[in-house]
Amino acid sequence: MNAPALTTSQTQPSPLRDPQDLADSLFRTRRQTHCLAAPLGVEDQAAQANEDASPTKWHLAHTTWFFETFVLQPFLPGYRTFDPRFNYCFNSYYEAQGPRQPRALRGLLTRPTCFEVRDYRAHVDEALHAVFAGALAEGEEVLKRIEIGVHHEQQHQELLLTDILSLFAQSPLRPAYREGGPLRVRHEAEPLHFIQFEGGRRSVGHAGEGFAFDNEGPRHDVLLRPFQLADRLVTNAEWAAFMSDGGYRAPALWLADGWARVARDGWRAPLYWEERDGQWLEMTLWGLKTIDAAAPVCCVSYFEADAYARWAGKRLPTEFEWECAAGGLAVAGNMLGADNLAPRPASPGSGLRQMFGDVWEWTQSAYAPYPGYRPADGALGEYNGKFMCGQQVLRGASCATPDSHARRTYRNFFYPHQRWQFCGLRLADEG
Amino acid sequence: MNAPALTTSQTQPSPLRDPQDLADSLFRTRRQTHCLAAPLGVEDQAAQANEDASPTKWHLAHTTWFFETFVLQPFLPGYRTFDPRFNYCFNSYYEAQGPRQPRALRGLLTRPTCFEVRDYRAHVDEALHAVFAGALAEGEEVLKRIEIGVHHEQQHQELLLTDILSLFAQSPLRPAYREGGPLRVRHEAEPLHFIQFEGGRRSVGHAGEGFAFDNEGPRHDVLLRPFQLADRLVTNAEWAAFMSDGGYRAPALWLADGWARVARDGWRAPLYWEERDGQWLEMTLWGLKTIDAAAPVCCVSYFEADAYARWAGKRLPTEFEWECAAGGLAVAGNMLGADNLAPRPASPGSGLRQMFGDVWEWTQSAYAPYPGYRPADGALGEYNGKFMCGQQVLRGASCATPDSHARRTYRNFFYPHQRWQFCGLRLADEG
Amino acid sequence: MNAPALTTSQTQPSPLRDPQDLADSLFRTRRQTHCLAAPLGVEDQAAQANEDASPTKWHLAHTTWFFETFVLQPFLPGYRTFDPRFNYCFNSYYEAQGPRQPRALRGLLTRPTCFEVRDYRAHVDEALHAVFAGALAEGEEVLKRIEIGVHHEQQHQELLLTDILSLFAQSPLRPAYREGGPLRVRHEAEPLHFIQFEGGRRSVGHAGEGFAFDNEGPRHDVLLRPFQLADRLVTNAEWAAFMSDGGYRAPALWLADGWARVARDGWRAPLYWEERDGQWLEMTLWGLKTIDAAAPVCCVSYFEADAYARWAGKRLPTEFEWECAAGGLAVAGNMLGADNLAPRPASPGSGLRQMFGDVWEWTQSAYAPYPGYRPADGALGEYNGKFMCGQQVLRGASCATPDSHARRTYRNFFYPHQRWQFCGLRLADEG
Amino acid sequence: MNAPALTTSQTQPSPLRDPQDLADSLFRTRRQTHCLAAPLGVEDQAAQANEDASPTKWHLAHTTWFFETFVLQPFLPGYRTFDPRFNYCFNSYYEAQGPRQPRALRGLLTRPTCFEVRDYRAHVDEALHAVFAGALAEGEEVLKRIEIGVHHEQQHQELLLTDILSLFAQSPLRPAYREGGPLRVRHEAEPLHFIQFEGGRRSVGHAGEGFAFDNEGPRHDVLLRPFQLADRLVTNAEWAAFMSDGGYRAPALWLADGWARVARDGWRAPLYWEERDGQWLEMTLWGLKTIDAAAPVCCVSYFEADAYARWAGKRLPTEFEWECAAGGLAVAGNMLGADNLAPRPASPGSGLRQMFGDVWEWTQSAYAPYPGYRPADGALGEYNGKFMCGQQVLRGASCATPDSHARRTYRNFFYPHQRWQFCGLRLADEG
Repeated sequence: MNAPALTTSQTQPSPLRDPQDLADSLFRTRRQTHCLAAPLGVEDQAAQANEDASPTKWHLAHTTWFFETFVLQPFLPGYRTFDPRFNYCFNSYYEAQGPRQPRALRGLLTRPTCFEVRDYRAHVDEALHAVFAGALAEGEEVLKRIEIGVHHEQQHQELLLTDILSLFAQSPLRPAYREGGPLRVRHEAEPLHFIQFEGGRRSVGHAGEGFAFDNEGPRHDVLLRPFQLADRLVTNAEWAAFMSDGGYRAPALWLADGWARVARDGWRAPLYWEERDGQWLEMTLWGLKTIDAAAPVCCVSYFEADAYARWAGKRLPTEFEWECAAGGLAVAGNMLGADNLAPRPASPGSGLRQMFGDVWEWTQSAYAPYPGYRPADGALGEYNGKFMCGQQVLRGASCATPDSHARRTYRNFFYPHQRWQFCGLRLADEG
Repeated sequence: MNAPALTTSQTQPSPLRDPQDLADSLFRTRRQTHCLAAPLGVEDQAAQANEDASPTKWHLAHTTWFFETFVLQPFLPGYRTFDPRFNYCFNSYYEAQGPRQPRALRGLLTRPTCFEVRDYRAHVDEALHAVFAGALAEGEEVLKRIEIGVHHEQQHQELLLTDILSLFAQSPLRPAYREGGPLRVRHEAEPLHFIQFEGGRRSVGHAGEGFAFDNEGPRHDVLLRPFQLADRLVTNAEWAAFMSDGGYRAPALWLADGWARVARDGWRAPLYWEERDGQWLEMTLWGLKTIDAAAPVCCVSYFEADAYARWAGKRLPTEFEWECAAGGLAVAGNMLGADNLAPRPASPGSGLRQMFGDVWEWTQSAYAPYPGYRPADGALGEYNGKFMCGQQVLRGASCATPDSHARRTYRNFFYPHQRWQFCGLRLADEG
Repeated sequence: MNAPALTTSQTQPSPLRDPQDLADSLFRTRRQTHCLAAPLGVEDQAAQANEDASPTKWHLAHTTWFFETFVLQPFLPGYRTFDPRFNYCFNSYYEAQGPRQPRALRGLLTRPTCFEVRDYRAHVDEALHAVFAGALAEGEEVLKRIEIGVHHEQQHQELLLTDILSLFAQSPLRPAYREGGPLRVRHEAEPLHFIQFEGGRRSVGHAGEGFAFDNEGPRHDVLLRPFQLADRLVTNAEWAAFMSDGGYRAPALWLADGWARVARDGWRAPLYWEERDGQWLEMTLWGLKTIDAAAPVCCVSYFEADAYARWAGKRLPTEFEWECAAGGLAVAGNMLGADNLAPRPASPGSGLRQMFGDVWEWTQSAYAPYPGYRPADGALGEYNGKFMCGQQVLRGASCATPDSHARRTYRNFFYPHQRWQFCGLRLADEG
Repeated sequence: MNAPALTTSQTQPSPLRDPQDLADSLFRTRRQTHCLAAPLGVEDQAAQANEDASPTKWHLAHTTWFFETFVLQPFLPGYRTFDPRFNYCFNSYYEAQGPRQPRALRGLLTRPTCFEVRDYRAHVDEALHAVFAGALAEGEEVLKRIEIGVHHEQQHQELLLTDILSLFAQSPLRPAYREGGPLRVRHEAEPLHFIQFEGGRRSVGHAGEGFAFDNEGPRHDVLLRPFQLADRLVTNAEWAAFMSDGGYRAPALWLADGWARVARDGWRAPLYWEERDGQWLEMTLWGLKTIDAAAPVCCVSYFEADAYARWAGKRLPTEFEWECAAGGLAVAGNMLGADNLAPRPASPGSGLRQMFGDVWEWTQSAYAPYPGYRPADGALGEYNGKFMCGQQVLRGASCATPDSHARRTYRNFFYPHQRWQFCGLRLADEG
């Protein structure tokens, strides 16, 4: 997610590539980004919450720069660049596109203002309309790039929300991104069940239809051993039991690097939990709330998820176990479209639940290239593999993921110490 | 400047303490602060340029919090605190006033907004009017505190400008705080002359009339040896000669800690100089400009000033040499009232010039208490001595200092490595 | 290597478990460690070269502490602990064994002295003789633990040499661990050839006979695609071509985290290369030498190896490709027994060469547990999995690896930025 | 002390300059350094305790290098440099003498060995004998340099002891530099009395007879106000009362930078105090001992001394108050010659006691040049002023100071956060 894969390696026609569908998707996404920023004040949009996060304004501008740079400049004849200095301001990490504002200093970009960025977006949107009106002669390549741009912007929609939560959690006022709140405390989740899956030779990775980032392919076979997967996510109540049992004080439960983090940073609860007068509260997009015991735990690092699993006598799934288990399921759940903006308790019933939505699920798989993976040529493909070291794969989707962005083969990835995303866990075991 | 001294230790009636004069001064200062922020956008006002700097918005609110906390709450009956949470947000370092937002995270205070801060200022201003209207029965103490508040706010006016310059210097757009610009290149300053001063027993420090911070007293005698003082400040052209002669590459010229900074941070010119296409430019409040050779060098650290003096075969003055030399001079010069917002070349002529205004002048005196100094009791005096270690005294005033803030006995102080203030130097020598 | 896996999970009888064979192996290993330290002065043995390294004296004592703690104390009736304070000094990271000297401060352990450590070793060796003489009634478990201790000490033999090289490379005198030197410059290696391997379902990991660490199991099947493997290691001459072509200055070749290291630490050549008067030299255990163009490049990080492979249009192998390719080969090569103490050019000929010895080979496989892996109970198994995050697997063996320590299934692992081990690379490609 | 002043600026003949006296002093000092190192093992002599400290071996060699570089090479015809590489190894900070081993890496100088350094010392001593035998024709300059070398070596004698204490305090074995120990617990010191001193114009600084470093001059007049000085040092019992009263937890007592250190490093007692089973012990050169309540507190920073004085309602003296108060006293006390190697309780009686010996006394004076101070030319004078920023002056002498090294005008200096020297405090007050 923090490293959008940008190549156009998929070779099959994608349903979205119908120009009208793609245009609908594009402008719907552009409008939605705008709406996500709408509740925020000017200052809220300009501040950088931490070194991994970006200001809202930067997300708004960077996604726009992406279309300008990779679609409009090369493909729209006569396109007038909005402001040539923006290439420096809003390039994220494309070396081929030249030098750029250091990531840690994005919060110092007080200029251009929010209003100039709004105009920038309008300027680019207008030009994108022109592309659809007249530039279709360019054919497949321009459509492919627009489609990538849509998915790229969807990634930043989620980041926009997680970055705002990080910002507001550090404000002494603990502002709510949205007022009110659907969070209701249910005291108990249903007992956890494990579902058995067979082993064998399975195909994983993306192929054929629909859009995918290049890190999802090539499709290839893997061998799985029989395994079990929990039917729901680990809940806040279960996490509280881990804490009560001294989970954050028992080095034997932790990876060595994780224990070093616990000691160095004083971890003793999930990122946004805070104890006030003996009660644990949780900072959310709805402000500071009592903790919903039955909801999935959220904003924990891989190190914490791994320690929890060891404490529970289980393990985390591999990304391929997860993908195969998700095989028959609808890609649906508590995602951005549901507008809950927070993980929710599993619905009653049986069977695998919460596979998409609520929280991204840490897997024990290191983020690495699939066999035969080769980055594409050119700036768009420049960096596809550059993050494939030292990070862990997450699967599923979160309450902040745009619904059309989720896929069974989607590979999200973060460093094992990072906590500010909507990340949780599901237990697995040997079959 | 970064550590406003807050006690009301002066015991003589001050001219300003006429209530009407004080009220005039107060509301003029309050309006001026507002005007200084006016050219800035909302984002500009919210960002924190570096760990030593504060956002404009924070300056606006902190100076207001000062009046609310030390004047209105204790002295205005029935005063309604604007928002009790602001004590956490806008307390700078008063331990007795409770915990506060960490200094390095002031840029995350996106709430309250600029507009709320504006309302906060209006609310407090209105209450301050009420103080003058009816609370004079409180007598001397409330007036003394208001007077301190005025001087405190003047300090932050200067900081507001230096912090904005730091912010804009880090923006890839290099915005101008003010458009246009009076800066004109004059190719040569008049030759430097040294003026001879006699030694002997002299009285230094504040006494008697007018306002002073407590670090300016007690007045006491010192012994001076005969000395010489340059008749003007060191210019940019002279600094360029130091650079050309390898000043930044010659360890023998530097204090050990200064040389370590040069090596660590790669210093090779004053803070805001940048080389483009072989030409040196300087970032100013008027934007990026060619360097005025005859203007005083600005935004250099003590380490640099000291190295320059050694290179020149001279030394920096002590703070008492400076104070005694300034004895007969009018407290006037290129300060905030002149609205140049930049140091200017010395006026033609002879005699000591530029003693007030243009740039603060580094002295070789460590910032330390005067003999018999004792901090006052209570929160206002809590920290008067707490910065008296490891910093150097600067004398004079700068182009950003409010004119009524300057005094012959004024002691500004910064760490020897700090560069983002309007600091320069004047040479001295044995008599 | 830096995280010896310590469980006794192997369940098959191992050839070494014949008591007499095991005793021979044990005392031979103990003597050899002693010999490796022999060329070093007292000071050489006490200094800690870097935070990842340990003093020779510490290696000598820690390996001894291992036998004392896990073999003698639990299994030798009446055993007298040499000095109870040594548990604090020489425990590496076993939380269950209590607190310990911080790793970064091992160089401050000037006491016990080298001579006391020598006595400690003698004391423990004598007790180990007693184990063989009389305690065989204890049966299998004590033998298993001794066997682990032997392999554990072999790991530290290699570390002892790499840590001394790091120390001597930072000495202004550039001392030689051994005088003289077999290094002769051959100007060209034979051209590189790629050998084709078939894909399919293969079994990997340890099973059955002989000793293995628990991270080498369980044995399991994997699917391989057809692949090619270079017939020899990348040479110094080839690395020099990478450097000449700007390899260390081209961000597009590097993983993002690798490029950050290049920038931060100024990497521009392998760790021990230094340029003097325009010529590149290399610090070795034989002192500072001219570089042998035909010898394998050594002491490069994973980041560098990966960048090289990308530059060459190839990739690094996976650990399973490597293991399968090594299937039919004798476990033999330029290892510690050859006493070259440096990588050597590939022998002339054809076919896969240098698979064991010379340098450890970075693979693209992240260090992770095999399917079904479970750490053993107890202190010995406490930490088997604790390093399985963020590191890369290396295969083969180096010129400092004891010959009997190498195995086809052996999994060495280091962080991708670490450079001070004898690590190099072999290219791979799609089949 | 950490910045030996090296010029030969004194112009009056010094009593020591009788060649025979100087030779006696020289060789006595050289032997004494040798004796101070004698109780240490080879490893003890090679380790670097912290970044501010140096290995014993380095002290032994550096003081020798000083004579070789500044006396033998320029003045002894035909002198054969022992090893030209030692200039790199053992130069401390003389830029004019070329590059050198980074200070933080002195512990990696395992070569040359202790024995080679011993030979180095013998080689240089022999040559120094030759200087006296035949080189007297060189006249005054060579004698002046030898005299500086003697005082320079005396400084390093004290550092050798403080650095060893730091090393041993970090060893889990808490070794004793010397066995046995004179430390006896006396439960109470005599009550503290303040002695009144008159103010007025006084002369301070060195002049005329005897050796002095150049930072002790020029002699000049200062004005003092009447003041009081405690008749003895602050004791451990008094310090314990400060601790019991929450001294380390009360920010209002501390300088701002001091409080930041308390928070960052967790200070809660003097450097070498440690609590075991509810009892405070102190690490000393005699090993870990119960604390002598009546002995002076030791190994505290300036920040701590200043906070203590504020807590006590007093202040620290200025360096000139101290110097004037010491005017009539014999330069005698518990210094190195007494061989106690630890501070001792004040002797019973009245009047100023403990002015020389026991512990260096922090003053409130920043380390700065005296009026008219100018560094000498050449390498020896290269850096006399380079430490005159950011440090505090200490006066007196400690239990580790060679008796002939102490003077009333002596100015020792350290950074306000440094704690590893034998530093304590004496209270002062207004007169």
